[in-house]
Amino acid sequence: MKRMPARPDNVHQATLLRLLRDGGRSRAELGDDVALSRSKLNLELDRLIETGLVEPAGLAASRGGRRSGMVRLSPQIRFACIDIGATSVDVAVTNGELEILGHMSEPSEVREGPAVVLGRAMDLLGKLREQGLYTQLHGAGIGVPGPVSFREGVPFAPPIMPGWDRYPVKEAVSQELGCPAMVDNDVNLMALGELHAGLARQVDDFLLIKIGTGVGCGIVIDGKIYRGVSGSAGDIGHMRVDDQGPVCTCGNTGCLEAYFSGAALAREAVRIAPRSPYLAERIALGMRPTAQDVAVAATMGDPAALQLIRDGGRHVGQVLAGLVSFFNPGLVIIAGGVARLGHVLLAEIRSVVYRRSLPLATGNLPIVLSELGDTAGVIGGARLISDHVFSAA
Amino acid sequence: MKRMPARPDNVHQATLLRLLRDGGRSRAELGDDVALSRSKLNLELDRLIETGLVEPAGLAASRGGRRSGMVRLSPQIRFACIDIGATSVDVAVTNGELEILGHMSEPSEVREGPAVVLGRAMDLLGKLREQGLYTQLHGAGIGVPGPVSFREGVPFAPPIMPGWDRYPVKEAVSQELGCPAMVDNDVNLMALGELHAGLARQVDDFLLIKIGTGVGCGIVIDGKIYRGVSGSAGDIGHMRVDDQGPVCTCGNTGCLEAYFSGAALAREAVRIAPRSPYLAERIALGMRPTAQDVAVAATMGDPAALQLIRDGGRHVGQVLAGLVSFFNPGLVIIAGGVARLGHVLLAEIRSVVYRRSLPLATGNLPIVLSELGDTAGVIGGARLISDHVFSAA
Repeated sequence: MKRMPARPDNVHQATLLRLLRDGGRSRAELGDDVALSRSKLNLELDRLIETGLVEPAGLAASRGGRRSGMVRLSPQIRFACIDIGATSVDVAVTNGELEILGHMSEPSEVREGPAVVLGRAMDLLGKLREQGLYTQLHGAGIGVPGPVSFREGVPFAPPIMPGWDRYPVKEAVSQELGCPAMVDNDVNLMALGELHAGLARQVDDFLLIKIGTGVGCGIVIDGKIYRGVSGSAGDIGHMRVDDQGPVCTCGNTGCLEAYFSGAALAREAVRIAPRSPYLAERIALGMRPTAQDVAVAATMGDPAALQLIRDGGRHVGQVLAGLVSFFNPGLVIIAGGVARLGHVLLAEIRSVVYRRSLPLATGNLPIVLSELGDTAGVIGGARLISDHVFSAA
Repeated sequence: MKRMPARPDNVHQATLLRLLRDGGRSRAELGDDVALSRSKLNLELDRLIETGLVEPAGLAASRGGRRSGMVRLSPQIRFACIDIGATSVDVAVTNGELEILGHMSEPSEVREGPAVVLGRAMDLLGKLREQGLYTQLHGAGIGVPGPVSFREGVPFAPPIMPGWDRYPVKEAVSQELGCPAMVDNDVNLMALGELHAGLARQVDDFLLIKIGTGVGCGIVIDGKIYRGVSGSAGDIGHMRVDDQGPVCTCGNTGCLEAYFSGAALAREAVRIAPRSPYLAERIALGMRPTAQDVAVAATMGDPAALQLIRDGGRHVGQVLAGLVSFFNPGLVIIAGGVARLGHVLLAEIRSVVYRRSLPLATGNLPIVLSELGDTAGVIGGARLISDHVFSAA
């Protein structure tokens, strides 16, 4: 196992590193943001420079007196992100400021198990290393499409991830890459990505609804992910729409996911194909229609496909309306593959929420589509692990 | 306006006051719980003794060396609580340790408006003063049955409180009583009561579901009330059970409150009376049957009344099951007048939640009936205002 990279010694150094994560600045500017004497601030910065995490970067413009020295995170800092989806794996490498230096994505079935999927992620990371994007990593953030016991860094009874239950993902990746690692649910990662670089940058309390193969929700309270007492908070895919609906994989009827998700859309696509020339053609060509095909059909103005999306939006809206009344968030972001069905979906969700939620809760509530797309998860992974690495050891 | 009573000078004094709120103790024991040097601790305690908030209380038993001095909150500290319900008003006076010294309750219709209802509360408090329970108050905590703009201390567009919208409750009570006042939603007050003295004493993240005239939810995260961005979090009465249900006062159909609440039960009682000898008798006597009458009928084994309670429990359970999946709490407490329907109701709620929520979220989840009853709200009121008074000014 390789030597672990440096970590801050104390909470002041950790605060300085997190401030520098948002960009290099002068010692004087840092002094404005932390409650430290000038001598103590300089002492801590000098210690961080000794560890190699921070480096001097010339002189700042004068603010009236002597010019202050600029500092920034070492350009050598590298974080890896592994975002494992139900049917894909994304890996990326960022610098200390969480800018993506390289990003690769491949189709990958999570049900093939941890050895295969993590092996593929390591291969992709190896390619990024061969491109010269990193030599040593300072940490790795990992997302998986299921519930996670956050402290141990292991998936916990994940329904769509056979073979992953309690698999030591955090430990395995940490050993393999020789750096600290953290594992979280993929939806929480997306919420962290939005908090760091997306529409939620200025918002303390928000919900991110991911509609992909399944449906999940990331909950941010006071700028931090809320995980609940056993780490399953936000698992809304099996919230009840009604009792008469389709049977769900969980055994209940009328769950949100049974009504609307990538999987449900693909199933419904077959059902409406007789009324949809585009979907009928796909099937005639021997292809199994997907949620993406429904989106294409809708874009072509196909009424049956449009109706499917509207119905889905209504069901998401019915569940979300209750959550908005309950949680009174400052922002709702809709994300995930199915969210790319776009404004027809958004309009329907908005219409139900604004009609059914408490007026006090919706008065100033924006409901928006994510603008980060596929990068939300990997930026969130970098944010997760950098929050950990940039904290006092 | 009378002179306001003393407040702590700094955060250390505030911490000491909150520790002493849980009971008097020795200086040595306090030293174990705060990160202060012995001399600094004694300095802050001496200052608190000067203000009259704390007093010496003899010597503690020896812990091996010199006997440490006991200190306790001044027995003169008094908090008032005013818990305004839809159809009742409760007032109480507590000491600094939030023990109830006197508690009075009267029927009172909140829709008679703030002048009448607050006037009645002041009369009741006056009676407690005449009994010698207080001369000066250190603060007053107030609960109202509707949404509150917490910072301003005013009800905000409360649906069942005509005449109260933006009425300056906090300011009016503060002026009248000559002490600081805080206003919150009555359900949040009950949750604070449970946190302070009820089943939630050791629980950081929990939900309190109040089923009274309406239905509401108090959300505690990390030992604090979560209010949401506009203060309406927890307002679950209008969460959707389904689209086909009864029309609600809010204009939508199938809201939880339209299915099950004190008001809904009273309405249903008339409907089932032909099949319920007890309810039929009440009506024959010219009385309008209430939720309480349904409870009595159920206790007498009346199948129609029992079925009504079971149906209600099922609907509460359907909404709660989703909230448990979403929020993953450590405890759910069922409280409020209708909760006194007791174990038939609880059994039905549990059955739906344990069947429909995510297994990971219900694995260690107790769902219990409140044991505090009517005192939860007033203890919560004392807790609310003491948290404020025992904080640095």
